[in-house]
Amino acid sequence: MLDICLLGTAGMMPLPNRALTSLVTRFNGSMIMIDCGEGTQVSLKKKGISSKPIDFILFTHFHADHISGLPGLLLTMGNAERVENVTMVGPKGLQKTVEALRVIAPELPFEIKYIELSENYEELKLGDYRIEAFKVHHNVTCYGYTINIDRSGRFDAERAKAADIPLKFWNRLQKGETIEEDGKTYTPDMVLGPARRGLKVTYCTDTRPCKAIETYAKDADLAILEGMYAEPEKLEKAKQYKHMTFYEAANIAKNACVKEMWLTHYSPSLIHAEQYMDKVKEIFPNAILSKDGREVTLYYDEE
Amino acid sequence: MLDICLLGTAGMMPLPNRALTSLVTRFNGSMIMIDCGEGTQVSLKKKGISSKPIDFILFTHFHADHISGLPGLLLTMGNAERVENVTMVGPKGLQKTVEALRVIAPELPFEIKYIELSENYEELKLGDYRIEAFKVHHNVTCYGYTINIDRSGRFDAERAKAADIPLKFWNRLQKGETIEEDGKTYTPDMVLGPARRGLKVTYCTDTRPCKAIETYAKDADLAILEGMYAEPEKLEKAKQYKHMTFYEAANIAKNACVKEMWLTHYSPSLIHAEQYMDKVKEIFPNAILSKDGREVTLYYDEE
Repeated sequence: MLDICLLGTAGMMPLPNRALTSLVTRFNGSMIMIDCGEGTQVSLKKKGISSKPIDFILFTHFHADHISGLPGLLLTMGNAERVENVTMVGPKGLQKTVEALRVIAPELPFEIKYIELSENYEELKLGDYRIEAFKVHHNVTCYGYTINIDRSGRFDAERAKAADIPLKFWNRLQKGETIEEDGKTYTPDMVLGPARRGLKVTYCTDTRPCKAIETYAKDADLAILEGMYAEPEKLEKAKQYKHMTFYEAANIAKNACVKEMWLTHYSPSLIHAEQYMDKVKEIFPNAILSKDGREVTLYYDEE
Repeated sequence: MLDICLLGTAGMMPLPNRALTSLVTRFNGSMIMIDCGEGTQVSLKKKGISSKPIDFILFTHFHADHISGLPGLLLTMGNAERVENVTMVGPKGLQKTVEALRVIAPELPFEIKYIELSENYEELKLGDYRIEAFKVHHNVTCYGYTINIDRSGRFDAERAKAADIPLKFWNRLQKGETIEEDGKTYTPDMVLGPARRGLKVTYCTDTRPCKAIETYAKDADLAILEGMYAEPEKLEKAKQYKHMTFYEAANIAKNACVKEMWLTHYSPSLIHAEQYMDKVKEIFPNAILSKDGREVTLYYDEE
C-alpha cells in the first residue's frame, strides 16, 4: 500500500489556513516529499507525520513557494537524529540552490546526494519507487513527477517445481533477483507470471497544459494537478503566468483517463472555490477540490 | 504611540500552534521587524498586519529559526509592490547570508541596504527610531535590541516670543531643526524644555543572562526576553545551549526595573508553561507568558 498526503494546497504564498503545496508518500517505510515551501515542516507536524523517514526530496522547480521550507526541514530532520543520506532530485541548478540555502543549515548529521535532471524525460529508481520526471511548461524549467510502485507477476509454484528450482531460491526469485549456482542460472521470469498492475500517482504544478502531463499521467490511480485559477475569466492570466485553470486540469485528467484527480496550488485570490466544482465535474467527474492535509492509501488491485 | 506585536513565541522550530518568535513595531506608519523565521509572513497575515510598511528588518543572529522566513517575506513585500528601500541590520555576515538566501528571491522591486554590527554596543538612527544594539552571550554572535522613541521637551511659546523668534519657524524648531536666517541662528533649545521620557522596548533572545541586557533594558516600558526553559532542572541545559530559563529572564527584568516583561522563544518541549508562572511572578510580578500575536500600544506618559 502507498500512503499519500497532500500537506498543503496554496500556490505563491502561504496563508493562515492554506499551507503551500507539498506532497508526501510512504511505501515500505520510505518517504518521498515533492516540493517543500515555507511552513511545510509545520504541515507535517499538523498531520502527525515524522520528517525523519524522508529519503527523497523532489523539486518541481526553484520558485520560493516550492523550496523555501527546505532549510528548516533539514534542521528538523537533523534534530531527529537522522543519519541516512537524503537524495534530492530537481532541475539543473539543484545543488547550487540547495547549497546556497544551507547558509543557515550548514551542519547536518546526514549527507545530501543530488540528482539533477536535464532531459525532457528521465526515469529514476529511488528505493522501491520508480520515478518518471517530465518537463512541463512554466516560465522557468519545471518538472512533473509520476511515482510508480511496480508489481511483479504472481509466483507460479507449479512452474518452479517443474523447472526443478531449489526451494531456497524461490523467495529471492520472487523479489526479482537473478541467481547463479553450480553453473545454472535462475531468472524471475522462470517462476513469475506477467507483471501485474502496480500503483501510479502523478504530481504536477506550475505549468500550462501540455501533452507530457497526459502522457505520463496515463491511467494513474491519482493525478494531483495545479488549479491556480477557477474563475473562467482568469484564463488569460493563467496563460500569462504559465499556470492552469481548474478546467484545463480537468481536461488533462479526462484525457489521461486517471481514476481520480485532486486540484491544488490555488491562487491566494481564490476564496470560494467550491462554486466552480460543478463545471469541473462536468468535464471530469472524479475531480476533488483538495483541502490541506488530504490523504489516501492506495492498494493494489484485487485479482 | 508605538504599536508592538509579538508574532510568535516558539524557539528552535515552528509548531502548529506556536509560530517562531518575531517582533514587529509600528510608529508613525513605519515598521521594524526583529527576526523572521519560517512562517513569519503567515503570522503577520493572521494578525492582519501588512508586510509592505516594514522599513527595517533587524536580526539577532543567523540561526535558521530567526531568518528562514526572509525570502518568502521579501517576495510577498515585492508582490505588494513595495518600492522603497528596506534596511537590514545584523551581525557581521548579514549581507552574505541574506544574499545567499536570495537565490530563491533574486528579483525584488526594492533595494536592500545593509548595516553590519561589529561593536559590543552600537546606536543607530532608523527613521524615527533610535536603536541600541548590544552584544549578548549565545553560541554564535548575537545581538539584543532596544527600540527607543525619543520625545523632545515641551514647546515654550513664552520663551519663543521673548526671544523674538518668527512664528514661521516655531514648528520646525519644535521638530528639532536648527535654522539660520539673516545672520541669526535659531536652535531648538531656545524654545524647548528638557527632553521628556519617550518609549523604550527591549527585545532579547538566544542568550545567557548578561549585564548588557540589564544595562540596555534599564527602565524600559517593555522587555521581551527569551524563556527557553521553564523547568528548574533544565538550568544545566540552558547553560549548555546558551539560553535562559524563565527565572533568569525574570531576574533581569527585576534588576533592569522594566515596567513589564514578556517571556517568549519557548522550547518545543515546553507544554504547560502556565504552571511555572507563580514562581516567575515571585521574582518579577509583571511577567507575562506571551502567546502568539500578543500586542500592546505604548503611549507617552501623561504629564
